[in-house]
Amino acid sequence: MEATLELPIETRKPRASSVTMKATVFHGPNDIRLEEVEKPRAGIGEAVMRVTLTTICGTDLHILRGEYPVRKGLVIGHEAVGVIEELGAGVTGYQLGDRVLVGAITPCGQCSACWSGQSSQCGHGEGYEALGGWRFGNTINGAQAEFLLVPNAQANLARIPAELSDEQVLLLSDIASTGFGGAEAAGIKIGDTVVVFAQGPIGLCATAGAKLLGATCIIGVDGDANRLAMSRRMGADVTLDYRETDVVAEVRRLTGGGADVAIEALGTQQTFESALRSLRPGGTLSSLGVYSGKLQIPYEAFGAGLADNKIVTSLCPGGKERMRRLMEVVRHGRVDLTPLLTHTFPLAQIGAAYQLFGDRTDGVLKVAIKP
Amino acid sequence: MEATLELPIETRKPRASSVTMKATVFHGPNDIRLEEVEKPRAGIGEAVMRVTLTTICGTDLHILRGEYPVRKGLVIGHEAVGVIEELGAGVTGYQLGDRVLVGAITPCGQCSACWSGQSSQCGHGEGYEALGGWRFGNTINGAQAEFLLVPNAQANLARIPAELSDEQVLLLSDIASTGFGGAEAAGIKIGDTVVVFAQGPIGLCATAGAKLLGATCIIGVDGDANRLAMSRRMGADVTLDYRETDVVAEVRRLTGGGADVAIEALGTQQTFESALRSLRPGGTLSSLGVYSGKLQIPYEAFGAGLADNKIVTSLCPGGKERMRRLMEVVRHGRVDLTPLLTHTFPLAQIGAAYQLFGDRTDGVLKVAIKP
Amino acid sequence: MEATLELPIETRKPRASSVTMKATVFHGPNDIRLEEVEKPRAGIGEAVMRVTLTTICGTDLHILRGEYPVRKGLVIGHEAVGVIEELGAGVTGYQLGDRVLVGAITPCGQCSACWSGQSSQCGHGEGYEALGGWRFGNTINGAQAEFLLVPNAQANLARIPAELSDEQVLLLSDIASTGFGGAEAAGIKIGDTVVVFAQGPIGLCATAGAKLLGATCIIGVDGDANRLAMSRRMGADVTLDYRETDVVAEVRRLTGGGADVAIEALGTQQTFESALRSLRPGGTLSSLGVYSGKLQIPYEAFGAGLADNKIVTSLCPGGKERMRRLMEVVRHGRVDLTPLLTHTFPLAQIGAAYQLFGDRTDGVLKVAIKP
Amino acid sequence: MEATLELPIETRKPRASSVTMKATVFHGPNDIRLEEVEKPRAGIGEAVMRVTLTTICGTDLHILRGEYPVRKGLVIGHEAVGVIEELGAGVTGYQLGDRVLVGAITPCGQCSACWSGQSSQCGHGEGYEALGGWRFGNTINGAQAEFLLVPNAQANLARIPAELSDEQVLLLSDIASTGFGGAEAAGIKIGDTVVVFAQGPIGLCATAGAKLLGATCIIGVDGDANRLAMSRRMGADVTLDYRETDVVAEVRRLTGGGADVAIEALGTQQTFESALRSLRPGGTLSSLGVYSGKLQIPYEAFGAGLADNKIVTSLCPGGKERMRRLMEVVRHGRVDLTPLLTHTFPLAQIGAAYQLFGDRTDGVLKVAIKP
Repeated sequence: MEATLELPIETRKPRASSVTMKATVFHGPNDIRLEEVEKPRAGIGEAVMRVTLTTICGTDLHILRGEYPVRKGLVIGHEAVGVIEELGAGVTGYQLGDRVLVGAITPCGQCSACWSGQSSQCGHGEGYEALGGWRFGNTINGAQAEFLLVPNAQANLARIPAELSDEQVLLLSDIASTGFGGAEAAGIKIGDTVVVFAQGPIGLCATAGAKLLGATCIIGVDGDANRLAMSRRMGADVTLDYRETDVVAEVRRLTGGGADVAIEALGTQQTFESALRSLRPGGTLSSLGVYSGKLQIPYEAFGAGLADNKIVTSLCPGGKERMRRLMEVVRHGRVDLTPLLTHTFPLAQIGAAYQLFGDRTDGVLKVAIKP
Repeated sequence: MEATLELPIETRKPRASSVTMKATVFHGPNDIRLEEVEKPRAGIGEAVMRVTLTTICGTDLHILRGEYPVRKGLVIGHEAVGVIEELGAGVTGYQLGDRVLVGAITPCGQCSACWSGQSSQCGHGEGYEALGGWRFGNTINGAQAEFLLVPNAQANLARIPAELSDEQVLLLSDIASTGFGGAEAAGIKIGDTVVVFAQGPIGLCATAGAKLLGATCIIGVDGDANRLAMSRRMGADVTLDYRETDVVAEVRRLTGGGADVAIEALGTQQTFESALRSLRPGGTLSSLGVYSGKLQIPYEAFGAGLADNKIVTSLCPGGKERMRRLMEVVRHGRVDLTPLLTHTFPLAQIGAAYQLFGDRTDGVLKVAIKP
Repeated sequence: MEATLELPIETRKPRASSVTMKATVFHGPNDIRLEEVEKPRAGIGEAVMRVTLTTICGTDLHILRGEYPVRKGLVIGHEAVGVIEELGAGVTGYQLGDRVLVGAITPCGQCSACWSGQSSQCGHGEGYEALGGWRFGNTINGAQAEFLLVPNAQANLARIPAELSDEQVLLLSDIASTGFGGAEAAGIKIGDTVVVFAQGPIGLCATAGAKLLGATCIIGVDGDANRLAMSRRMGADVTLDYRETDVVAEVRRLTGGGADVAIEALGTQQTFESALRSLRPGGTLSSLGVYSGKLQIPYEAFGAGLADNKIVTSLCPGGKERMRRLMEVVRHGRVDLTPLLTHTFPLAQIGAAYQLFGDRTDGVLKVAIKP
Repeated sequence: MEATLELPIETRKPRASSVTMKATVFHGPNDIRLEEVEKPRAGIGEAVMRVTLTTICGTDLHILRGEYPVRKGLVIGHEAVGVIEELGAGVTGYQLGDRVLVGAITPCGQCSACWSGQSSQCGHGEGYEALGGWRFGNTINGAQAEFLLVPNAQANLARIPAELSDEQVLLLSDIASTGFGGAEAAGIKIGDTVVVFAQGPIGLCATAGAKLLGATCIIGVDGDANRLAMSRRMGADVTLDYRETDVVAEVRRLTGGGADVAIEALGTQQTFESALRSLRPGGTLSSLGVYSGKLQIPYEAFGAGLADNKIVTSLCPGGKERMRRLMEVVRHGRVDLTPLLTHTFPLAQIGAAYQLFGDRTDGVLKVAIKP
């Protein structure tokens, strides 16, 4: 990285002189406010991006409701598309003005976790830290703002191909990386049967991911007709409405004895247990949901521990190479996620966006926020 | 297999004319009897072996106590070394008198499970069946007898190299295949830290298996000084007595934040939970125990489902290629399991052997039974 | 398999009394004849199928031309769809009249190769044999006939779902299993760039396989406009005509420095070398072609052995579970191979079919042969 | 990494005021000189280590002889143990004076190659570069000097456990990482048979690596009695002297038809070809040698491309996590490499060391150089 010293230092200065920006700040349960905060400056190895598109995640709702604790004063949000505004010393190969996508998870590339292929548990320079790769809107200021400070910028700034719009790539930063990751972690092979429990944004991406990997009977499960319709659009061969169908029995019937893979995309005992009961002997449960309280494994569905089952969990993979690959998936027309962006709001109306997204009304799946 | 038709039919006949044999028969909870039963004959694709050495497994104790149901009249036991007594039509390449080892699991090699590398869930010709590969002393007559009918003989008769004794290979049929398999299923890599919960016969073999695969800090956990001493002999770098030590805290200290892999070799909520709590973010729990009742995952030890953890379960891998490989491990001096064979009994005294093994007195680990 | 003894023996007899059949017999280079030969009978573990659809493979042309030696008098051909005509003793779970697909490779499921997941190198009951899984039309009578004797029938008879026609599944037995297998052996991951050299039947299936596995920039290379058009239909994003384009340079340009995976589907020094030169550092060459004479690795394209490259070769995976999975791929509309079946002939005109297929005229890709 | 700004800047200054150092400089073929050169200073993300132990590699001999081109004026050598002398801005979690090991390969952790697990082909911030991870003594100044400038220090400085001496860890930086890596890249499983061609330092480490991974019949091949004796000490079960034995025939006999894995550790057509001919169908050739000129694959040994063989190549894996793991291997007594350090020289006598190492006299395997 020594070459960076050769760059004239003025190319690294911010072009705009603004010193504050608008940002969505957490003040306590059910109290987030759009307000003026200090605009970030890029330190060594960092970058500042001007956010051109962001969104709200289910996790942000947990934060809003006080179910997931973050410190007061934190700017929330972790999904961002934008333009490079400032480059810190030691970041090379980028130009101010480059359009970039940054993953929700921003690993360092230099710790045990990153070297071991588990960068979501990034130890920030050394070792492992549980969920350590998730920093935006969790431990450092996040993306629902006009500007975003990107740590480990060399590892995390992914240039956006010119032919792709912000809307085409926004959802890759979290839900697509998570959903596809759930399919990948399950080790799906050509011809596998896959059932995905819950068809919210992440489950829909898991459905699309299963199809990308060659699964040949993909079953989407939800209780919302809108989402079941979108499930078929994203790749499900069959959809099951749990309000009307004995899902476990029907999956076992459709798959001739149990699915090769079940993906859990909600985070409840009910879906976890149904996912396990839907598997054939030797099948894999790939879990994406966030659980709270005790989680029970029904031992008989698990062959008393002898049925060669696997339970794999994964947090959204991040880093710029992941983003680059996912953008290639979109660029070559393999997956189109824009139908999931059902609504658009300016940043000034982010309160209304939270309201809609939280209420799950008007067929909302994901909301685009434009600073 | 058509070539078998060319063999003169008389070479396939049993050499002895005996029509009954001594066998250990289950008559009900706490009621097993050594009695005369009909000697088996080999049908198509089958073989009969004269058992020269067998043993008792922890699972047999569950059967004896009525905790695992099998039908009355069944000959029990599933580990056997012996000599080929009779070969059914369609079995080729073997000679009467060949010394053979047969795995506790006898898969068919021709169903979906076998073709998918999960032969312990063998579907017997088609599909999958939970635990379907385990037949001896479970669904068909077993090994604690003078003779044993081997199904799918072509797939399951493993010739024993001349330089290996019966005692050297007996324990490969179940506990070594299971224990090594637990280490293999965990995906142990060079330099991994591994903790093994419980150092009974299977846990001791998991310890040996972890060492075979290049683990570099292996921690054996038990509450029995004898077993902890054997643990060090089988490869543990450190042993922890759970009666004296806060095991989870100590594992986390020794490994600098949590083990890469934890192997559960008992089958209780306590050991399962401690195993999970001993892991680093991203670590793998390989479970070998047999569980009953509800099994709980402590969600916080699991990163709420976001810590990239895996829980993998496996039943003893079987089939003759597995046995061949394990015999090579012994033949080349990589592992010596004979210290685990602490006691020997003639078949006539199998009742006393069950008593000793069940009582876990006199430092017993495994008992050799000689028909 | 002992249960087979309970079946009334007469259900296993052939329903028809014919004792001869029409078959395509190799008599020497450029001398194959359709003639009457003895109809096969099923021995232990075998089955006879009445062939309803078969085809000619490039390998059959090599045999015809004397380039690949087989014994005189052999019935050739190795791809077959049909109906079960006779079941030998020891084969269970099937009915006479069942529609079945049999792979070109018919492994035993019981040797070291089969247990090691490399069943194409099947050792027939024990060990390994190079190419040992390929028996039809190579070491035993083949499929271009009215009836076909299937060895290891339990491992190789795959029932055809009622909704699939013979034409929809015929090409799964060899070219699809081979082509998809080449993509699978390369370890293609979501977002990989893949170039496939030669777009004959196998290369086209490799193209389809790459797409099935989530590759996102697939480049098909050939010198035949027809085949390049079909390449795009089977999943190529870009096609390159080697007569007009510097393929290696163009692949490196399109992929930004070299493809993640190159698949060789012809078997020449030229395509092998171009495939290697098309790779990025660390890329994988998956080779499907059949080579003759010395094959050179250009050391500089190989990073002098230091560029973390892999060269993987694979023979068509067989066995009924493979066929079952591939039929699921077709049944769920993931791939349609019927456009590759460009011509149809009755068995009586197989000579004309060989002529057309060998001459590669009239846009022929694969010919269907109906006995 | 922003936290680094909080450190008082003076803690980052060098403690010594020296401005020059002794270093081994390449001036042209057969012309290397120990001379005074400018001592390096640490820029952003870099560190300077005071070298306490280094060594000479076979690659250095190639450089010396003009067979591998490097620029004139370059300090050569790429293996170093030492003490942190200076830390550049942005490097966190280390202290001046920390004892550290740095791998011969120093990847960035932030490019496509590093994120893809192929860090030896590091693209330095973006993409891939063939052999790009190898910088010391190749593209930047190297380790045969009093001080060494370490690029991407956060990713590459591995602290040495207090109980390990410099001598115990020195050889991990290159030959052990390379040799073990060759065994790992081959995917060695418990019970595999492995033959290693050439028992120089890297081949000996490949032998040790095969044993670490559970191989059970390891065959070491060389033509030097000293090295064959060391081969047995490092884990070979059998050694073969190619001057006296038909190695391929003997390997095939010992392994019952061919080895599961052959490791090539020399880089000649002869050893490459013998390695391939030693494999069973489906076996893997793991190549570690550096080749020059055309390399031929004997097509018949390769099953004409149909024997499911793999040829995998790998360059020494680097990065601090790799070094940490290898030091754990040594710390737990799994491998002892100190017997390979047959000779020690002060830096002042590095010319004599090159002479001895190049002549391969006096039983030399590796020479330790003390600045």
